[in-house]
Amino acid sequence: MSEKEGKRLAIVVESGTVDKLYCAFILASTAVAMDMEAHLYFTFFGLQMLVKGAMEKAGLPATYKHLERKMRENLERMKYPTPYEMLKRLKQSNLFKMYACSPSMEMFGIKREDLIPEVEEIVGAATFLEIAAEADVTLFI
Amino acid sequence: MSEKEGKRLAIVVESGTVDKLYCAFILASTAVAMDMEAHLYFTFFGLQMLVKGAMEKAGLPATYKHLERKMRENLERMKYPTPYEMLKRLKQSNLFKMYACSPSMEMFGIKREDLIPEVEEIVGAATFLEIAAEADVTLFI
Amino acid sequence: MSEKEGKRLAIVVESGTVDKLYCAFILASTAVAMDMEAHLYFTFFGLQMLVKGAMEKAGLPATYKHLERKMRENLERMKYPTPYEMLKRLKQSNLFKMYACSPSMEMFGIKREDLIPEVEEIVGAATFLEIAAEADVTLFI
Repeated sequence: MSEKEGKRLAIVVESGTVDKLYCAFILASTAVAMDMEAHLYFTFFGLQMLVKGAMEKAGLPATYKHLERKMRENLERMKYPTPYEMLKRLKQSNLFKMYACSPSMEMFGIKREDLIPEVEEIVGAATFLEIAAEADVTLFI
Repeated sequence: MSEKEGKRLAIVVESGTVDKLYCAFILASTAVAMDMEAHLYFTFFGLQMLVKGAMEKAGLPATYKHLERKMRENLERMKYPTPYEMLKRLKQSNLFKMYACSPSMEMFGIKREDLIPEVEEIVGAATFLEIAAEADVTLFI
Repeated sequence: MSEKEGKRLAIVVESGTVDKLYCAFILASTAVAMDMEAHLYFTFFGLQMLVKGAMEKAGLPATYKHLERKMRENLERMKYPTPYEMLKRLKQSNLFKMYACSPSMEMFGIKREDLIPEVEEIVGAATFLEIAAEADVTLFI
């Protein structure tokens, strides 16, 4: 039994780039492996990554675009899982929960049927704050 | 009486783009509506958004620039308040406090009289850390 | 004796731009001056800034590139320390600890001997989460 049992990680995923998705999913996977709860709230460009087919196309931010090819080659050589593969594994844990931000969907004209089937809850910021207020680690990615 | 009464949200607003301003102000507004304190510390490009007239011109980050037009159209159709309108509403709550980062002002040659009148306190990082160390949710946006 | 003694700041440094390095190092320096522990975990583009010579070349993000010259001139006039100078000062405090993310090194083909000598620990996300789960302020920069 881990000493971290009962601890909680809560992350706002606002970015829609592959580095940030990896950060969110690596932290969540690590948390779950340590018996911590992991809650991810997807908003703005993060929410857009929950549209079917979007996560596979995620690239690096404009500032770091020149590093994209090298990173992709190394990830392939390492046989590193893709962000979507990581998300699907996370969904198998009952310590993991993900939320789609409802106002972001309206801002970008995204409908429920546009989203990947892994999304269960479409909620507002109040739900996230309720969860985050009881979390041990809170991050905005 | 909310169960979140007495809880505290503390955010560093480092970014100067419209999506990040919305994130900060939506989270702060939601917090205040839940009887939580909300403290926003504006630094770097976030501080620049406190210069008179700047917030109205805030756009999307370079990486997501192509989404700007669609987002603006949807926000208008939704009659969504602008970031500055949200800030002015927040100022009516005594649970809300905002701080301008003094070193950032010197770094970018910004004077007190350049700032919007809503700014009351110009402080350094120590003030933010004192507040954040007693907060329940801490984020860097 | 400070009232903040025994408090802890834990930051993920994911970005590799000069504004974000300043944010991380200013917050860490302020924390240490307040008798708080400061833990910085460098990953992705933050990790790349630990390669010898990289920190000196750090610029502003694409979105804010037009502000770079003005900021540099002001920093010089203010005789503000560079990020690397701030890091070297931080290393003199036993309240400060920094960590290099091991998977990021593999993703970008970076070897231990490529890193500045200030790096002592090369670890994974679990180490960071263990530290962050006991921290009072957690940020992702």
